Amino acid sequence: MPSEPQTGSLSEALRRGEVFAADCPSRDILQHVTSRWGVLVLVALKDGTHRFSDLRRKIGGVSERMLAQTLQVLEGDGFIHRKAYPVVPPHVEYSLTPMGREVSDLVETLVNWIEVNVGRVLHGKRGEEDEAA
Amino acid sequence: MPSEPQTGSLSEALRRGEVFAADCPSRDILQHVTSRWGVLVLVALKDGTHRFSDLRRKIGGVSERMLAQTLQVLEGDGFIHRKAYPVVPPHVEYSLTPMGREVSDLVETLVNWIEVNVGRVLHGKRGEEDEAA
Repeated sequence: MPSEPQTGSLSEALRRGEVFAADCPSRDILQHVTSRWGVLVLVALKDGTHRFSDLRRKIGGVSERMLAQTLQVLEGDGFIHRKAYPVVPPHVEYSLTPMGREVSDLVETLVNWIEVNVGRVLHGKRGEEDEAA
Repeated sequence: MPSEPQTGSLSEALRRGEVFAADCPSRDILQHVTSRWGVLVLVALKDGTHRFSDLRRKIGGVSERMLAQTLQVLEGDGFIHRKAYPVVPPHVEYSLTPMGREVSDLVETLVNWIEVNVGRVLHGKRGEEDEAA
């Protein structure tokens, strides 16, 4: 695991990023993957290819604008593949790239933990869980 | 894995959250754990107990205000334990609770993946990685 902050060169960062360093590009990627909608898009696409409207229906509360922006950013990182069919009306499909599937697996594990443990957290907030030492 | 959005009751959410539902409390917890500084605080504390100033030094770029706010939110969720010693000047220590260690392990796995793969992502941006089918 990362220990001390390093302000290494970009070439060093290319070998192994260091999220504790403010200027490491890994910070941006972490931001994209863990963003409010980024997390949910990555997990939603694990089911397979989705159209924009399917994703929007699946991810409660996301606006058209935020979903489009999130998909664009994750496509830019190479996590999502966008395929546009030249038809009228436009038909665009989104899927995970192989690299996207890797990161999506890890994000999903975290999401699953939270879904399973939400009751434990909420109970703790009401003082029912012992304060850890 | 989560499939369709559900707008179940809070009691259902307490059994198993559903991050795809806009009103599920798991969304908030996910937000706290994956926030810009939340991720880094959780990983930083894996090394053991830290004082505020140690954390601030370790996490490049975080402001005093944002670090304090992040710690408070994660303490509220029961992921972080705050211990204040009645001395002058004030001495406050932060550590992971048992539940915080669980979630921190998963967050760290994701962070490690990103640190290891940052080069792959950046190379992909320059068109050196094949477009996934």
